[in-house]
Order: sequence, then C-alpha cells, then structure tokens
Amino acid sequence: MSAVFDLTAELIRRRSVTPDDAGCQALLAGRLARVGFKVEHLRYGEVDNLWATHGEGGPLLMFLGHTDVVPTGPAESWRSDPFEPAVRDGYLYGRGAADMKGSVAAMAVALEAFVTAHPDHRGRVGFLMTSDEEGPTNLDGVRKVAEHFRASGERIDWCVVGEPSSKERLGDLIRVGRRGSLSATLTVRGIQGHVAYPEKAKNPIHAFAPALAELAAERWDEGNVDFPPTSFQVSNLNAGTGATNVIPGALVALVNFRYSTASRAEALRERVERILDRHKLDYALDWNLSGEPFLCPAGGALRDTVVSVCRDLCGVEPEQSTGGGTSDGRFIAPLGAEVVELGPVNATIHKVDECVAVADLDKLPSLYRAICERLLG
Amino acid sequence: MSAVFDLTAELIRRRSVTPDDAGCQALLAGRLARVGFKVEHLRYGEVDNLWATHGEGGPLLMFLGHTDVVPTGPAESWRSDPFEPAVRDGYLYGRGAADMKGSVAAMAVALEAFVTAHPDHRGRVGFLMTSDEEGPTNLDGVRKVAEHFRASGERIDWCVVGEPSSKERLGDLIRVGRRGSLSATLTVRGIQGHVAYPEKAKNPIHAFAPALAELAAERWDEGNVDFPPTSFQVSNLNAGTGATNVIPGALVALVNFRYSTASRAEALRERVERILDRHKLDYALDWNLSGEPFLCPAGGALRDTVVSVCRDLCGVEPEQSTGGGTSDGRFIAPLGAEVVELGPVNATIHKVDECVAVADLDKLPSLYRAICERLLG
Repeated sequence: MSAVFDLTAELIRRRSVTPDDAGCQALLAGRLARVGFKVEHLRYGEVDNLWATHGEGGPLLMFLGHTDVVPTGPAESWRSDPFEPAVRDGYLYGRGAADMKGSVAAMAVALEAFVTAHPDHRGRVGFLMTSDEEGPTNLDGVRKVAEHFRASGERIDWCVVGEPSSKERLGDLIRVGRRGSLSATLTVRGIQGHVAYPEKAKNPIHAFAPALAELAAERWDEGNVDFPPTSFQVSNLNAGTGATNVIPGALVALVNFRYSTASRAEALRERVERILDRHKLDYALDWNLSGEPFLCPAGGALRDTVVSVCRDLCGVEPEQSTGGGTSDGRFIAPLGAEVVELGPVNATIHKVDECVAVADLDKLPSLYRAICERLLG
Repeated sequence: MSAVFDLTAELIRRRSVTPDDAGCQALLAGRLARVGFKVEHLRYGEVDNLWATHGEGGPLLMFLGHTDVVPTGPAESWRSDPFEPAVRDGYLYGRGAADMKGSVAAMAVALEAFVTAHPDHRGRVGFLMTSDEEGPTNLDGVRKVAEHFRASGERIDWCVVGEPSSKERLGDLIRVGRRGSLSATLTVRGIQGHVAYPEKAKNPIHAFAPALAELAAERWDEGNVDFPPTSFQVSNLNAGTGATNVIPGALVALVNFRYSTASRAEALRERVERILDRHKLDYALDWNLSGEPFLCPAGGALRDTVVSVCRDLCGVEPEQSTGGGTSDGRFIAPLGAEVVELGPVNATIHKVDECVAVADLDKLPSLYRAICERLLG
C-alpha cells in the first residue's frame, strides 16, 4: 500500500475523539521533523495543536486540518471496528477516513515530498493541526492558535483546508468561502398563571407568536454572486411547565443565522431586536457570533491555483461553493489569508461506516503537492 | 369543640392523597347509616366512591364532595404537620381543611341534623363522595358514578357542590356554572435537517408561526350574560433536539380552551382545524373534552335558594360566578341537575398552611341544612 494509505490507517487506529489527539500529532510531527520542519506544540486546555513550518520568510502557504474525530455512535452498527482500518471494495473504512485523517495524511505526505524535492522553495509551507474542530465550542483549537499568530505577528498568505469538500468525485467542489454563523438564546418573559384565569397571566407563547411569524417570513438579504441569501432558523423553542393547566412564565428560543457577506452581524442583530421591540416584548437576547463570513476572492492566486489543480489533475471543473457549515477556515481568514477548502468526497462523514475511496486517497497528495509547487516551487 | 370541627379534624388526620380515601368514607358512611341513610360503596379501580341517600322518591337533592386532597408539598414548609389538625388564631390548619374536608364534614353534620329533625322530609337527600377529584384524570370518580346513575335511571334534581367558593368571607361568592374545558395535543410535522442547509429541511416552528399568531389573536366568542368570553391558551410548546445546529422535525403544543355556553366544543375544534388547514400545515390533533360548560339557570329553585340562604344567614349578597376551573359538578349537570357550588373561603387551597376559619366551619352546616329545609322541609 501507499505511504498516504499507511499513514491514514495509522491515524485511524488512534482513537482521537474530540478533544483527545491520542498521539496523532506526535506521529505527524515526527515525520515532518525528519524532513526538516520546525515543530511547535501548542497545548491549550485539553486541546493539542501542532504548528510545523519549513522554509524562511514569506509568502506562507498553510495546510490546515484536524486530528480529532466525531464519536462513532453505536460501534456495533459498523460493519467493522471504526478504529481498525479495513479495506472493502476499494474503500478504506474507519472513523475519520474522510473527515479528515485521509486529507491530514495526504497533506503530510505531500509536504514531505515537496520539501524533499524543493529544499530551497520560495517562502514557507506550514502545517497546522488541532484536536478541537469537531467539538461544540472550538475554544482551544484554531481559534486560540489564530490569536497566538495575531499576537506574534505571523502572517498567513494562503490557507488550504483539507475538509472533505468533494461531492461525488475528487475535486468536483471546492469551498471558496463560508457563511457566517450568528446565534442567540432568546428569552421572552410573560407572567405565569392558571389557564382558567388568563386575565391574571401573560402568555409568552401568545405574545411571541406574531414576532415569530415576522422573523420566520423576513427576507434578510438577497445574497450575492458568491453567497446564497442569509437564512434564519429557530432550532429550539421551549415553553411550558409540562402541566396542561399552567400558562408558562417564559419562553426560550435558540436561533441561528447563516449569513452571507451581503449582511453584517451587527445589522442582523439590530433587525431582530427592532422586530421584538415593535411587538413590545419583554425579552432578553444572548448573542454569540461563532464565525464571520469569509470569501477567497476570485482572481486571487490561491483560488485560481486550486481550480487549475482540480482541472489539470482530476479532469473536472470544480464547483466554487460557499455553502455548508463552518470550518476552522473562519479563524484563519480574518488574519488576512486567502482560504480554500479541498478534500475527499464527504458522503459518509459523521456517519456509520465512514470511508474514503482508496484511489482518491492515493491521488490526494499529488493535488496538495501541486498547489505547493505552483505557489512556492 | 363542635361536631363539625371534630369531624373535620378526624378527616384531616386521614392521609387521603388522591386516589387514597384512607378511611374517610367509612367514617362518613357509619355516621349517616346511624341516622337512617342507605349506603352504597362504589369502588372503581383504585377509587372509592360513597353514595348515601335518605328518603324516598323525588325530588332528589344531592350534596357532592371529595375526600381526597392534593399532596402537601414539602411538609417541613408547613408551620405544623399537614395531617395533624391544629388551631391557631381562630383558624384550623391542615391539608384539606378548606378543600374540602371542612365542607364534607359540614354537609354530613347538616344532613344528620336535617333527617333527625325531619325524618319524613319530602323526596330524598343524597351524599356523594369520591376520592378522585384532585387527580389528573378523574376517570374513576364522579365521572363513573354519573355513568352508573345514567344507567340505573337515577334522577338528580339539585346538586350542591361543597367546593370552597367563597372569596373573602363565607357566602360572598357562589358558582352557578362552570366553563367547559377542551384540550388538545397538536403535533406539527416538518423535515429535520442541518441549519446550514435549510433548503433541505422544513422547519415546523417557522411553518406554525403564522397559524400560532392567528390562534392567539382569535376572538372565539363574546361570552354571554353568565360567562366571560371563551379563552384559548397554548400551555406548552416544544420543538428542537437541544442541538443548536439542527432544524427540528416536529413541534408539539398543548392547547386548552376554557369555553362558555356561547360556543360548542365541536365548533371550536373545527375552527382550530380550519386555521391550521389554511396555513397548509402537516399536523395531527388529539382532542380531549374534559368537561362541557354548564349553567344553573337564574330563576331555578336551587340557585334562588342558595342565594337566599347566603343573604339570610351570612348577611351578604353573593356574587353568582361562572369563573374558575372545573369541578365534579361538570359530571352531574349533564344528568339534568341544577348545580350550585357553595363552600368556605378558598384563599389557602392547594397551598402550604391550608386553613379554614373555625367560625366559618361552625356556620357552614347551618347553610347546608337551610338549603335542605327550604327545598325539602
């Protein structure tokens, strides 16, 4: 089997469920150190982060990934042990095979080959890993590393994220940006009472209803050439004591915006508050901006390079998408970096029997290496 | 102390939390049997019901009450043991003192005195007790006894319910009817999905919002001379998986009508369904009619008698109300009976340190006895 296959299999065997790195980064660091990378281990809280670079000065091309994986769910539902790599019908099975130990291994193998072939390449290549991408808060992962970069004056020019971006075949979709994610916990207060005496109570469900209808119907923006329109969703709505004869005293809703670069977070917040104020609600809003939107500009060196690599090496014209959830790219983009995501097919990620096509895995290092060569060779 | 005080105290000592009668009915049955009542014990499931009558033929004047009490809540919050009667500052304390062991004792003492003074009274007096008034379902209490009456052809002309109706002083308010209570569990179905891909999901919270606003704003009727307008309340509304990034697949709401005789349950059901249909919701409604509204007509013998008794013996002009929750009167009214509720002050019912004024307790038998004498003497 190939170097990338072997390394992916080694990583799958390490049970690195967030935030446990389980030795993945030590394995990767050892390999890169052997080919001349400078290695820095940045541990924050329970999270391991690895920052390895080769070369001097700028520009800096970073490869970004995570060594942690989501839980397996019921292991007995898997056809084989999720932490024991297994090949069936041309696919490598295991938790993290596609998200994203396959691309992590491919990036490492590509970097080894690149610096061996081009020991005096232009600028620097970097390899940044975290063990806190899949968790709920991401407080001690790339978010904190980015703060460290900002404080130390580290300048990132280009960032390739290895998230599994492809839809049906390798390279058919790259992410050239991500929507922002703005959440809030909304509490609407009423006055609790007995349903038989509604005049003595104030039902927060009834009070909120017209505002909720307005929020759900609102058109927040029209999107733009790179982004779909901003979407607003109430993910959770809870009110009531459980008793059928009690008017509840409060209602709690969790809301989320996935927003385009056509809107700003502050403006969305104000518009929500204006609607709630107009309905004269007694409310509290606790906002959380988990990521601002970012876009890698068309015509920029990184986006053009990645598109040409997909075209030349995979024989497909990649869709240039800004859809989907968030990624750690959101922490690197605000540093001024161009960010593009390119990785294997994502059909099985976070599912039982997660897998990656062995042929795709074998091809992936050549894509990452080509990006290095075209930008720094 | 008086007979009614002693009997109330004896009943409080019996820990008859729904559905446990704890020997209350045996005590009452023994006393009434000694003065010539025919006694029938109707046990359904875990519930004890007692039906005792004196006299022959009609008309039949029934006194209705319950021997069960609501739980005490944390007993250490009470100033004295809730099942140990205690007198402080002219009040008798204990769980059930006001709701409604005091009135149960007063009805029994009044009936003893009435049949002793008038052994050959007109028609019949009856005494119906259940141990399932305070529970959530009331399936095996007066609901079932009423079915038994209907099957056996028992005709009830007048029914005095001993529920604590008074507001500030004894006899200042009587209930001459009750609103109906119609409940439903409403499930609105959507399609679960990730908040980042709203186009692949259907958010039931958003879909329901305009219908909810319309339901909350609807004017169901204007009420009438005896009843306030029908009220509609959503008591519980729950949707969401807890996760902030998941659009839920369904929403569940518990709704309740307290409705006047100006509306019929069937019409209310249809109007709700029309609103939901107009908004093209995928929904299921599970209706539960827990009590139809009833009204004791003004000018009827019972209502006039109870009003005059309050006026003459308490020196107050009683408010004739149809407000408040439901009572077991809802099961007797459909048999064709006139139903009025008269009992002690309800300020402390269902609370810690429940109590009844000893003076009110001592007076209560004379009110019930006067009703007997004026209708059957």
